[in-house]
Amino acid sequence: MSDPRPPPPPPLRFARAVPDGDDRERLVCGDCGFVLYDNPKIVVGSVVRWGNKILMCRRAIDPRKGFWTLPAGYLELNESTRAGAEREAWEEARAKIAIESLLAIYDITRLSQVQLIYRAKLLDPAVSAGPESLEVALFGWDEIPWDDIAFPSVRWALYHEHEVEMGGDPAPRGNPPTDDPAAPQGL
Amino acid sequence: MSDPRPPPPPPLRFARAVPDGDDRERLVCGDCGFVLYDNPKIVVGSVVRWGNKILMCRRAIDPRKGFWTLPAGYLELNESTRAGAEREAWEEARAKIAIESLLAIYDITRLSQVQLIYRAKLLDPAVSAGPESLEVALFGWDEIPWDDIAFPSVRWALYHEHEVEMGGDPAPRGNPPTDDPAAPQGL
Repeated sequence: MSDPRPPPPPPLRFARAVPDGDDRERLVCGDCGFVLYDNPKIVVGSVVRWGNKILMCRRAIDPRKGFWTLPAGYLELNESTRAGAEREAWEEARAKIAIESLLAIYDITRLSQVQLIYRAKLLDPAVSAGPESLEVALFGWDEIPWDDIAFPSVRWALYHEHEVEMGGDPAPRGNPPTDDPAAPQGL
Repeated sequence: MSDPRPPPPPPLRFARAVPDGDDRERLVCGDCGFVLYDNPKIVVGSVVRWGNKILMCRRAIDPRKGFWTLPAGYLELNESTRAGAEREAWEEARAKIAIESLLAIYDITRLSQVQLIYRAKLLDPAVSAGPESLEVALFGWDEIPWDDIAFPSVRWALYHEHEVEMGGDPAPRGNPPTDDPAAPQGL
């Protein structure tokens, strides 16, 4: 899950100003007047099942290189959220998946990021590391490397997936009651 | 629902190029090298109930000025999706609402837009037009101005809300099977 490369700083020629017809400051280029409407970004990802195992990827890139995550990344222009989650599973784990239902929407307001995490089934267990992964693996619930998880929202998604698998309400989850990264420790 | 002001064209000094470490073309400023990571935008909105009536707003701005919509708009930086939907209800209809559950996620891929539409209850019927609305109204199902709806996704959301109110599956909906704007005609 790319919680992600931080956005590059705007160039020095940009300054904060309220454009005509707007009600809040935006970054405007002092040279050419270009207005940067910088809105939150969408991350799409999935918790992918093969039998009673879950697909995870060990990150080959910063931030959190070497830690375990779920296949996820930024939605691209003109892409549906389900297609984006499928693309990320392929790019990061060479995994062909079938999206099922929406597991959770996480608001990462500090990073201006909304994560849409789907439940999915793996269609073929022949997975392998894509360029952004060091390795990929299918873990049973008692094999998940809880001490080496890349981001809090990966832990939340695994926790919520486990709740649903145990017969819990299938309605999409949101952030856990506290944003404390230590909140749901394992299961 | 702001399906929305189209994005301004990029200034002439931007050209398409693949930045280092990326795998697709982005707009890059030829003067200063600024990379515009232009990802889809998130629209947050709500279907707001007061008893058996639904809150709607008649648009005071283009596109679709004079047509009826639901309170919705772009999510802002560092804002949660529920807080954004509440803010839009206030800005467009001076409506204080309580968000309940997620009604639908609509992928508007043509506009690179993801719409998150919540179900909500109105907390006080004293609503009034905000600066982007000509008027606001509470309509019963048989009073909704079906011939003067601003955008297809407004029609979808009303249709899906009605399904849920009639006892249908409360799981969040997606786009109707066809993107034909004429698809669900009224109810």
